[in-house]
Amino acid sequence: MTSWLQIPTGSHFGLSNIPFGIITTPAYPSPHPAIAIGAHALDLHIFTLSGGFTALPEFTSSHVFTSHSTLNEFAALGRPAHRLVREYLQSVLAEDTPHPEVLKDNEALQKSCLFLLDDVTMHLPLQIGDYTDFYAGRHHAFNVGTLFRGPANALQPNYEHMPIGYHGRASSVVVSGTPVVRPRGQVLEKPGGAPVVKPCGKLDFELELGAFLCRDSTMGESVEVGEAAEWLFGVVLLNDWSARDVQAWEYVPLGPFTSKSFATSISPWVVLMDALEPFRTAPLQRSDGAALLSQYLQEAEKNSVYDINLEILLNTPKGSTYTISKTSSRNLLYSFPQMIAHHTITGCPMRTGDLLGTGTISGTERESLGSLLEASRNGAEAVVLGDGNDGEKVERCWLEDGDEVILKGVCGEGVGFGEVRGVVRPARS
Amino acid sequence: MTSWLQIPTGSHFGLSNIPFGIITTPAYPSPHPAIAIGAHALDLHIFTLSGGFTALPEFTSSHVFTSHSTLNEFAALGRPAHRLVREYLQSVLAEDTPHPEVLKDNEALQKSCLFLLDDVTMHLPLQIGDYTDFYAGRHHAFNVGTLFRGPANALQPNYEHMPIGYHGRASSVVVSGTPVVRPRGQVLEKPGGAPVVKPCGKLDFELELGAFLCRDSTMGESVEVGEAAEWLFGVVLLNDWSARDVQAWEYVPLGPFTSKSFATSISPWVVLMDALEPFRTAPLQRSDGAALLSQYLQEAEKNSVYDINLEILLNTPKGSTYTISKTSSRNLLYSFPQMIAHHTITGCPMRTGDLLGTGTISGTERESLGSLLEASRNGAEAVVLGDGNDGEKVERCWLEDGDEVILKGVCGEGVGFGEVRGVVRPARS
Repeated sequence: MTSWLQIPTGSHFGLSNIPFGIITTPAYPSPHPAIAIGAHALDLHIFTLSGGFTALPEFTSSHVFTSHSTLNEFAALGRPAHRLVREYLQSVLAEDTPHPEVLKDNEALQKSCLFLLDDVTMHLPLQIGDYTDFYAGRHHAFNVGTLFRGPANALQPNYEHMPIGYHGRASSVVVSGTPVVRPRGQVLEKPGGAPVVKPCGKLDFELELGAFLCRDSTMGESVEVGEAAEWLFGVVLLNDWSARDVQAWEYVPLGPFTSKSFATSISPWVVLMDALEPFRTAPLQRSDGAALLSQYLQEAEKNSVYDINLEILLNTPKGSTYTISKTSSRNLLYSFPQMIAHHTITGCPMRTGDLLGTGTISGTERESLGSLLEASRNGAEAVVLGDGNDGEKVERCWLEDGDEVILKGVCGEGVGFGEVRGVVRPARS
Repeated sequence: MTSWLQIPTGSHFGLSNIPFGIITTPAYPSPHPAIAIGAHALDLHIFTLSGGFTALPEFTSSHVFTSHSTLNEFAALGRPAHRLVREYLQSVLAEDTPHPEVLKDNEALQKSCLFLLDDVTMHLPLQIGDYTDFYAGRHHAFNVGTLFRGPANALQPNYEHMPIGYHGRASSVVVSGTPVVRPRGQVLEKPGGAPVVKPCGKLDFELELGAFLCRDSTMGESVEVGEAAEWLFGVVLLNDWSARDVQAWEYVPLGPFTSKSFATSISPWVVLMDALEPFRTAPLQRSDGAALLSQYLQEAEKNSVYDINLEILLNTPKGSTYTISKTSSRNLLYSFPQMIAHHTITGCPMRTGDLLGTGTISGTERESLGSLLEASRNGAEAVVLGDGNDGEKVERCWLEDGDEVILKGVCGEGVGFGEVRGVVRPARS
């Protein structure tokens, strides 16, 4: 598929992607929907009002792109509607478009609705009702368990039976580019001593994917794993910033709390499930095959996760950029449909706009780890990234003030997530 | 303070209370704000549109009661506004009202805006952004810790240093009267064995208070404990339904998840903080006094919790009613301002409409425990409630299908919370 619009080589936003997001522009500074195509954002507010959907009667006078500051209403239309709109926009942008009058031959509309990505400001794509963070990266769970309990007891007994997860904090989910203030919190410096309150000394990132939901479920009912794909709107990159010293002291017995809820960053463009279809792959093998798995988690679809190439980069305060890690989202033991089936097994109601994080995605090698906790072995061995600009020696056990963490993800030619980035600001005094 | 409107003896909703809620009526079936007064709801939508606020210029043409289906907009006006409206409504309803023309002598408006509580339907009072559940009931934490680890290690080392909490599930918070379907879930019946999926066999309630917030905080900044009272809108009763068998299997290492998120019930009338002022009392003594406490949790206000008499009742399927337990909310180690200060210490942003649960409130005696987990010693000893109707022998280790749990709370003459009730429906097949 080629477009009449020039798509830069290596762009994540080719014609086979068409991710959705929320933008503001100088011309229209109220948040509104758009898609990304190549180096541009196509403003769906202007596109709709200018008759862009005349060839798609269902959307000609739809308000989903003109009256809402988030994608929730569009998402709630369901996957057939997402498919219809994505395929229509692909057809409008295709070299051999059957609707050249809509945009290809309509220079006036091109001028009014196409903006360079550099010229638009991105916002949270959906209003998030609830955010749940899972722990589905098996290698991550094993690596972390090994650090604290040794390899023989690394995985908890429940780990291979269910996608372990916890409720996260929706209010602290922010869009890429939002600075992250180093949190202060209670830390236990000496076992048996009294805690001190100080700026986090073990600030970390976590490489994850997040999935947005597009459908409500009924309280008291569960979603069948085979139907759960209909609840999925699309996927983003997610950085679950973590204060490891705060976490270690607070998390028994009720789990991570303030050590996570100071910030969770997501990439701004939601890649629809249909765009990810060609990149399906099987999740990690279970140690006993699928025999261990309860029926409500058993999937007919064997390729239930995605092979997305993921990368973690660090921009240092002096401007050097290093790759910390590279891995793939195939390193998951559970799929999004399994997460939904498990989330609803007790009858928990899901809502359009809910966000599910996968948990940290790590490989098995030091170069493929999704957190500094793993890469520095809880601070025991600095990760040496090299000599930077101005003689800067770049090594990290934990993040430093001024560090910018960038997560990238790409599936294949023209289908990627862009990036999620966030710079660490010093703790407030 | 007496009212010209007859207040039934023992009413929780006297002139010194004036709690706010969201109602629908046959006349106006769209959810809208009201207050409770005696046996009546005063419909604030009709009251406002009919000129009820003419003597309160700030609210004469305010939309907070006429254009919104939740109390969020009213809450967001802040505590001085809540005080102004509450005191004005008290003055309108007082026997010696300075504004008799507004309602006392206005029979037409009385007829149109006063409804018997039995004739209105209650709804969730606020749209909840995030729900956080704490664990601030020290006796509960000690009792539960004793069951699983013995009295010497009952409290975790962090317990007296910070209000332990976890993120709950906002979508599963429901208003009193909503039935609760017995959840199905994964349960480990034999240690070392494989889990089974079955209807919860250890269904429990938890007696808590919940506080709604009325102010946003800035991400990256913390709220000082001495200022946190300005974030408090009002208080409700809260039943944190719990599936103990599911919880025991799932909760390591990330805390309770599906065992809690199937339902959390709250009472419908929000008792404003001002109404609770006369009932302030000191929280429980810390074992080492306040010396252990980090400065950000130290309060100048010594009476930072409330002495609310709490009661748990059980309606059996055959219609017998028993008191399971009686206790007081003075059995808390941490106050709501301390919870807010701790929640924001790492910079987590709070929002109007957020709900904070205290955690289970228990006394030290068997008759004052806030959960069946404690009262039945994790199912080891049934709680004998007596012989019921039709020869029914009423004893419970855990809740049975058809049981209705009712939590009540009252502070003093005319100031109470009403109740939160929920009936257990059988698990779906």
